[in-house]
Amino acid sequence: MDIDTQRLQRDIEANAEFGAISTDEGHGRTLLTGSDADERARNRFVERLEDAGLDVRVDAVGNVAGRWVSESADPNQAPVAAGSHLDSVPQGGIFDGPLGVYAALEAVRALQESDVDPDCPVEVVSFTEEEGARYGVGLLGSSIAAGLRPLEDALELTDDDGTSLETHLDSIGYRGSGHLDAGKWDAWLELHIEQGTTLEEAGTPIGVVDAVTGITNCRVEIEGKADHAGATPMIDRTDALAAASEFVLDVERAAHEVVALDSETAVATVGELSLAPNARNVVPGHISLSMDVRDVDYEAINELIHRSESSLARLDSERSVETSLARYRDQEPIHMSDRCVAAVRDAAVTSDLNHLDMHSAAMHDTANIASLTDAVLIFVPSEDGLSHNPHEFTSWDDCAAGARVLAGAITQLTT
Amino acid sequence: MDIDTQRLQRDIEANAEFGAISTDEGHGRTLLTGSDADERARNRFVERLEDAGLDVRVDAVGNVAGRWVSESADPNQAPVAAGSHLDSVPQGGIFDGPLGVYAALEAVRALQESDVDPDCPVEVVSFTEEEGARYGVGLLGSSIAAGLRPLEDALELTDDDGTSLETHLDSIGYRGSGHLDAGKWDAWLELHIEQGTTLEEAGTPIGVVDAVTGITNCRVEIEGKADHAGATPMIDRTDALAAASEFVLDVERAAHEVVALDSETAVATVGELSLAPNARNVVPGHISLSMDVRDVDYEAINELIHRSESSLARLDSERSVETSLARYRDQEPIHMSDRCVAAVRDAAVTSDLNHLDMHSAAMHDTANIASLTDAVLIFVPSEDGLSHNPHEFTSWDDCAAGARVLAGAITQLTT
Repeated sequence: MDIDTQRLQRDIEANAEFGAISTDEGHGRTLLTGSDADERARNRFVERLEDAGLDVRVDAVGNVAGRWVSESADPNQAPVAAGSHLDSVPQGGIFDGPLGVYAALEAVRALQESDVDPDCPVEVVSFTEEEGARYGVGLLGSSIAAGLRPLEDALELTDDDGTSLETHLDSIGYRGSGHLDAGKWDAWLELHIEQGTTLEEAGTPIGVVDAVTGITNCRVEIEGKADHAGATPMIDRTDALAAASEFVLDVERAAHEVVALDSETAVATVGELSLAPNARNVVPGHISLSMDVRDVDYEAINELIHRSESSLARLDSERSVETSLARYRDQEPIHMSDRCVAAVRDAAVTSDLNHLDMHSAAMHDTANIASLTDAVLIFVPSEDGLSHNPHEFTSWDDCAAGARVLAGAITQLTT
Repeated sequence: MDIDTQRLQRDIEANAEFGAISTDEGHGRTLLTGSDADERARNRFVERLEDAGLDVRVDAVGNVAGRWVSESADPNQAPVAAGSHLDSVPQGGIFDGPLGVYAALEAVRALQESDVDPDCPVEVVSFTEEEGARYGVGLLGSSIAAGLRPLEDALELTDDDGTSLETHLDSIGYRGSGHLDAGKWDAWLELHIEQGTTLEEAGTPIGVVDAVTGITNCRVEIEGKADHAGATPMIDRTDALAAASEFVLDVERAAHEVVALDSETAVATVGELSLAPNARNVVPGHISLSMDVRDVDYEAINELIHRSESSLARLDSERSVETSLARYRDQEPIHMSDRCVAAVRDAAVTSDLNHLDMHSAAMHDTANIASLTDAVLIFVPSEDGLSHNPHEFTSWDDCAAGARVLAGAITQLTT
C-alpha cells in the first residue's frame, strides 16, 4: 500500500494553521470546539474529503463523516470506519487527533490508488469535542455516536461563558442532522500518537493497542482535629496529615503488591491533596485527596480499592480519624476486538514494520465505539511522550507508517 | 490584696468597645495598631492611668507606660513593671492582651488601697503591635523596649497599603519620644490568657509559666518526577508525595521518641504542605512543606531537626528524590527568672489559689523582656483554649484571680 507521506504531512500542517499559537519552538494550536479556528479546520477537512470523492455528512452533534463507496463495494454493507478528532486542548499539539483523521483520509486515497477492491463502504470520521476542553466533557461526539449519552444533554452543555454547544455549532454551521450511528459500522480503527514513551523506548514504530485501561477515581476525606502546633502535646493529636501519609504509603504498597501478584499493568496514584487549615503552626485538621487507579484488569482495580478501604478502616481505628472514600468515577477496561487487532498486526507484518502489543492508559474515542462494534486503536511514537503540549512531535515517517498500517488493516477488514 | 473584680471587668469591657465587631455570640474586636480604634483605646488607657495617679509617657514606638511612685518608694530604684498589649488580631477576642494591661493597673490600684509600702516604683505598660497583624512583625514594641531591634526598622515597617508604622503613630498622636528601656526594670510580670486547655482541663485558675518554648521552623523541599498517572508503571515512579508521606511519619515518630526519652514537652508538626502539579492524573513531582518544632529544651529541638535531616537523607538514597531542609527560623527557649517564678507561686499560695507550673508554647512580649531582666508570665484559663477568636472567654473570677496573683507577686518583688 503506497502512502503519500508528503500529502499526509501537508494535510496535517495545513490543519495546524487553524488556531496556531506562536511558540519559540514547536507548532502548537488551540482549537476549541465551535471557535472560528474549528470552523475553518472543519471546512478544510470537508473540502479534502470531497476532493477525494467522499460524500460528506454532518450529524446533529457536529460529527463529520466522509463516505467512500468504491465500484466494488456493496453500498448496503456495513462500512468500516476510521478517524479521530480535530479539536485540541488549549496550547496543545498538532498531531493529537488530526493524525488519526487525516491518516484515515490518506488510507482511503491509498486504497483508491491501489488495486484493492473493498466490498463495503469506508468512512472517514472526525468526532466533535474529544478533549472536553470547552464544555468539560471529553469523548463527547463519540459518546453520541455510540448511543452512550442523549443528544440533548450534549447540546445543552455550556462553556465557561455559559454558551451552549448547540449555539456554537449553529454559529459555525456544523449543527447537522441525524445520528452518525457507530452501531451500524462493521469495524472502527483509530490511529493516534502514544502520549507515553513505550514505543519510543522500544524503538518500535507501531503499537497495537489491545485494551484501554479502566479508570477508577475516588475522593478520600480524612477528618482529624486541627490544634495549635505549639500547645498540643504529641499524645493528644489527631493529625489528619499523618493519617493521610499512612494512606498514601498503603496505596503505593498495595499497588506494588498487585503488580507483583495479580496484574503487572496496575497503577494507583494519589496525585492531588489539600490540607485544612494548611498553616505552619496548626496540626492539620482535614485532608481531602484524590486517588486514581487504572488497569486493563478490572479485578485488579477492585482489589486496589478494597485495600484502600481497608487502610482507611485501620486509620479510623488506630488514629481516631474519620474517613470516607467515594468512588465517583468507574470506567471498566475496554478490550479491542480480536479480529481488528489481528488485522492491524498482519498489516504491520505485511508492511515490514515492527510492532508491539500494548494497552492505552489514556482514554480515546475508540473506547466509546468499542462498546458496540469491533474496534482497534493503533499508536505511533510521540517524542519524549509529550502530548497536550506545543512540543508534541511525531516524525513524518512514523506518521506515514501509522497510515500504512491503518490502510493495510482497512484493506484486510474490507476484502 | 483586694482586687475589685467589677472595676477590672468594667475596664476590659469598656476597652472591648474599641474596634468591637458584631458576632452572633461572643464579644470580638479588631484593633489594629494605628487605627481609630487604637487611638480611642489608648486614650482611654491613658485616662485610666491618670485617674489612678500614674505619670504617663509614650516612647518613640508608641509603647505606653504609667509610673506609680508611692510615698514609700525611692524614685531612683529600678521599677517593677507589668502589663501586656492592647492590639488584637482581626476578629480577635477581648482578653488577649487587655487582661494583662488592665490587671496590671488593677494591681497598682489594689496596692494603693492596701497597706503595702513598695520601696520602688511600679510601672504599668502596654506594648505596641504585639500581634504583628498590621505590619507582619509580632512582639514589636517589646523588641524595641528590649533593644533587640533598631527603632528605625520598626518605624519603617509598612502595612498592606504601604503606610508605615511611623505615619500611623503620628496620625493617632502616639509617636512619643525616648526609649522605654526594659533593661532598667528590676522585674517584669505579664498576665495573659492561656491560649490552650491545660489549666481548664486541670481545673486550676493559675498557671505559673517557667519557660517559653523555643521554636524552629524549617522549609523542606522534595523533588521527584511528575509523570502521567496512567502511563507510568509503579516501578518507574519518583513520587514526591510518597516520599513526603514517609517524611511526615518519620517526623511524627521522632517526636514521640524524643518525648519518651529526652523531653516530654517536645512537639513537631508538619502543618502546611503543597504539591505540584497537584492534579488527579499526575504523579506528584514536587512537594514543599513546613515543619514547626518546639520545646523548652533546645537540645531536644536540635535532636528533632537532626532526625528530620536523617530521614531526608534516607529518602534521597532510597527513593531517588532530591531533598533540602532550610532552618529559616530558630528561636531558643526562654526561661523565666527563679525569683519571679517564686514570687508568683507564693502569691498564689497566699491567695489560696491552686496553681500549676507550666510552659508557654505561644510567644509573648515577656519572651523579649526576659532576655535582659528578670521576668515571669502568669496564665489564667481560656474557655476551650480559644484565642484569636470572638468567642475567646475567661471568667471574671479567673480574671480577678490572675490580677490578685499579679498584685501579690508585685508586692513580693517591691517590698
